[in-house]
Amino acid sequence: MGKKVLPPQATVRRLSIYLRCLNLLDEEGVSVISSRELAERLDLNPAQVRKDLAYFGEFGKRGVGYSVLKLRDHIIQILGLQKTRLVGIIGAGGRLGHALALYKGFEKRNFKVVALFDKDPHVLNQVYGEAGPIHHISELPRLVKALGIEILILCVPAEAIPEVFEYVLLSGARAVLNFAPVKLSSTEEVTVHNVDLAMELESLSYHLGIRETGLPNEWP
Amino acid sequence: MGKKVLPPQATVRRLSIYLRCLNLLDEEGVSVISSRELAERLDLNPAQVRKDLAYFGEFGKRGVGYSVLKLRDHIIQILGLQKTRLVGIIGAGGRLGHALALYKGFEKRNFKVVALFDKDPHVLNQVYGEAGPIHHISELPRLVKALGIEILILCVPAEAIPEVFEYVLLSGARAVLNFAPVKLSSTEEVTVHNVDLAMELESLSYHLGIRETGLPNEWP
Repeated sequence: MGKKVLPPQATVRRLSIYLRCLNLLDEEGVSVISSRELAERLDLNPAQVRKDLAYFGEFGKRGVGYSVLKLRDHIIQILGLQKTRLVGIIGAGGRLGHALALYKGFEKRNFKVVALFDKDPHVLNQVYGEAGPIHHISELPRLVKALGIEILILCVPAEAIPEVFEYVLLSGARAVLNFAPVKLSSTEEVTVHNVDLAMELESLSYHLGIRETGLPNEWP
Repeated sequence: MGKKVLPPQATVRRLSIYLRCLNLLDEEGVSVISSRELAERLDLNPAQVRKDLAYFGEFGKRGVGYSVLKLRDHIIQILGLQKTRLVGIIGAGGRLGHALALYKGFEKRNFKVVALFDKDPHVLNQVYGEAGPIHHISELPRLVKALGIEILILCVPAEAIPEVFEYVLLSGARAVLNFAPVKLSSTEEVTVHNVDLAMELESLSYHLGIRETGLPNEWP
């Protein structure tokens, strides 16, 4: 038995980054990598890499490094990616929902969009890709259970969120990725992550300021 | 003069979160807030909040707290959001690019999409919202300079990235938000942030594992 401390969210996010790097290393034929080399490739501090992986009991061999394949498989297990997670999209009739319904990047990472929902009568029954016809939102609880959907992606306007979230809770899905421009909190029943596209731009704006002046825009 | 240490990226990202919270507090008529209350609202550790804000010389008054309006204005300055940043979208003819061209969440955060680019002849000259007709990608260098665009959003397929990035470097834009499923690195000339939509799902998958077992899927 190892330590019982749960890792911080930032460490969990970095596991995805390590995973992509390990897949690339495997393609390049690299079989062993040190924390220093891994850190260099990812522009991280080597001590940070060792600390992140130590949360999960991975220490590598001193002076040798980590086995690329073993570490990769371990991270896949930790992230629960060894099985395909089924996904539903709510608001699939909108532009963003439509784009995500057809986004190629999910399936190759073992997430499969299997159902689409909306409440606009003009888009019901339209077929976008393999996830098939758009169902009315009232079908959500039945289809989440029938298909075994675990993750719901919300692409609805802010004002639709209260009604949609009622359906989400009824459905029993345990995870939500929210693109609506309103922050939702996790509950006992469901873990919510909020995607804020403007936040990515704000962080770039900060870096523009540093480029202009060499220091943040309003340095004390 | 305050300290010269640049804050970590995670702190910069939290500034956006503080900013949204301070805007809400102002709407609620709250004029002063302690680091403890701010931390509670955001589910953060109070020491973390104090440390984040101390990077920028904000300490609040001991036993009183931070002035909501002063702290908000200070964060706006630090993030360089007091002026509107102009944005161009490359790959605007695709579904994701189209969705982002019409996304309502950017302008209210002081980012304005002012030009759209693609190279597909079928979408050239189409008009999506106020950002107006889609220009050919070869127009990028001229229009970035003419309009004063600072940030480019890339919504192109992975295989188009090498060609597109050449145009980006020619254009002189200093910041890129990359939605293509291929990781780009920042250069001397341009700061790149990569958006990885599947990574958000991987982090949810980890939390699904914890919900199922009480511990990560493969706990040592």
